[in-house]
Amino acid sequence: MAAPTQISANKCFGGYNRRYKHASSSLSCDMTFTVYFPPAADETAAAPSKVPVLYYLSGLTCTDENVIQKSGVQRACAQHGIAFIAPDTSPRGLNVEGEADSWDFGVGAGFYVNATVDKWKNWRMYDYITKELPALLASSFPTLDTANASIMGHSMGGHGALTIALKNPGAYKSLSAFAPICNPCNVPWGTKAFSGYFGEDNKELWKAHDATELVKSYSRPALPTLVDTGSGDSFLEVQLKPEAFQAAADAAGFPVTMRMQEGYDHSYFFMASFIDEHVAFHAKHLKA
Amino acid sequence: MAAPTQISANKCFGGYNRRYKHASSSLSCDMTFTVYFPPAADETAAAPSKVPVLYYLSGLTCTDENVIQKSGVQRACAQHGIAFIAPDTSPRGLNVEGEADSWDFGVGAGFYVNATVDKWKNWRMYDYITKELPALLASSFPTLDTANASIMGHSMGGHGALTIALKNPGAYKSLSAFAPICNPCNVPWGTKAFSGYFGEDNKELWKAHDATELVKSYSRPALPTLVDTGSGDSFLEVQLKPEAFQAAADAAGFPVTMRMQEGYDHSYFFMASFIDEHVAFHAKHLKA
Repeated sequence: MAAPTQISANKCFGGYNRRYKHASSSLSCDMTFTVYFPPAADETAAAPSKVPVLYYLSGLTCTDENVIQKSGVQRACAQHGIAFIAPDTSPRGLNVEGEADSWDFGVGAGFYVNATVDKWKNWRMYDYITKELPALLASSFPTLDTANASIMGHSMGGHGALTIALKNPGAYKSLSAFAPICNPCNVPWGTKAFSGYFGEDNKELWKAHDATELVKSYSRPALPTLVDTGSGDSFLEVQLKPEAFQAAADAAGFPVTMRMQEGYDHSYFFMASFIDEHVAFHAKHLKA
Repeated sequence: MAAPTQISANKCFGGYNRRYKHASSSLSCDMTFTVYFPPAADETAAAPSKVPVLYYLSGLTCTDENVIQKSGVQRACAQHGIAFIAPDTSPRGLNVEGEADSWDFGVGAGFYVNATVDKWKNWRMYDYITKELPALLASSFPTLDTANASIMGHSMGGHGALTIALKNPGAYKSLSAFAPICNPCNVPWGTKAFSGYFGEDNKELWKAHDATELVKSYSRPALPTLVDTGSGDSFLEVQLKPEAFQAAADAAGFPVTMRMQEGYDHSYFFMASFIDEHVAFHAKHLKA
């Protein structure tokens, strides 16, 4: 596993946003990611200490940079002493025919699955997020306590966070999402992605990456979960379907705090407004 | 004076970012600006109340959108009940020959002056910020207490805030800046802009828009002033020269809090790290 190379660093709230590039074995291309190191865990600290990590999975079209620039998450991460991990959303630069034809499929739209359709064989974001990246962080950054991790995400990344946490019991201390795609098997974004990456007939695989399906059979350990969606989100009814996840969770006895935030839309302005609460939620469970 | 037309609105920290377009008489083109209305002063509030305003002048290449998306200023403005006014940085769309040849002159680089060189006769950002925009806000938005105003800015906009406040005693309750160009007559960005907008020989006009010159003769009323610059700012020595402003202020007996923030650079990450302190500083003086 090749060590990541730092490509930029910006001091922020006493810590540093550090952006890295590395050759990904899962995806067979170079990938970038950013880690926000809170003050105590940065290499510039007098006596750096180990801190928990919070993975953040981004939405369609995003890179690692959007949330780093627009959410203001560093403030709360500095306060609570949590490292924030922002990966990219798909392989890039592979020149697969048609990879950039759509903004909701291919480049920038990995949906956090391992594709089984041969054409998209390098789209293995599930392995990248659940295996390669944690191992890379553990081997590269001694101040990251990668065994003490939580996960969150936005939109497509909310789908990613929900499904990855539900499929890996015990791997994450807590889970949260902003405006997640809750039931991809039944919405246009999800059916387009799953048809493309898994094939139209592979419905069992579709269900294996659908949070509303996965929550039905989740047993333990407890997975504290917080979901915020905006009532003014233009994707709410057609793409997100939080009510489907809520109903399935309730039927399964899976406790989840689902909040509808009056008037908020799908943007980073929505996320910025509640990111402090999400980080505080994760901090409580990471420190337990 | 034509009323501004709203072109977007995003709920944020309980209030709204509202972006407007209007036909500017000072600049002879359409201009955009964004107002962040804190919860109590937004049109959606049950009983909207009047709030003070904080003008923010942006740096080179920026529009009104950068600070709205990247600084996280809305959080503190919501908390203190202050409206945040983000104008653009120059006229746009006038098709003056060469207007977009440089990133530090012409479009996106108005330097908050009224140009006297005929070719740039529409570059009247000083009038726009000090006269047209306040009048437009006063006539268009009943919840803005435009007589209760403070001003701040970043880089070129820090120069703008310093010079505009010093040239208009009593117009602003307080003044702050991030990484301002403090002595434009003596740095490359400033001499290029002033040569272009005023002509090479018009040195008295240059001095009339140089904070280090203006502070020498500022008398009253008291103008509480806070300036933050990062020690890791790559423009610090060649373009910013805070030490020149500090020396002139000290010699003139003008009280200013000038802070050097260890390791911070010129980016919005620097600004985001201290924006709460700047808003709190202005809130104290606006409420006095």
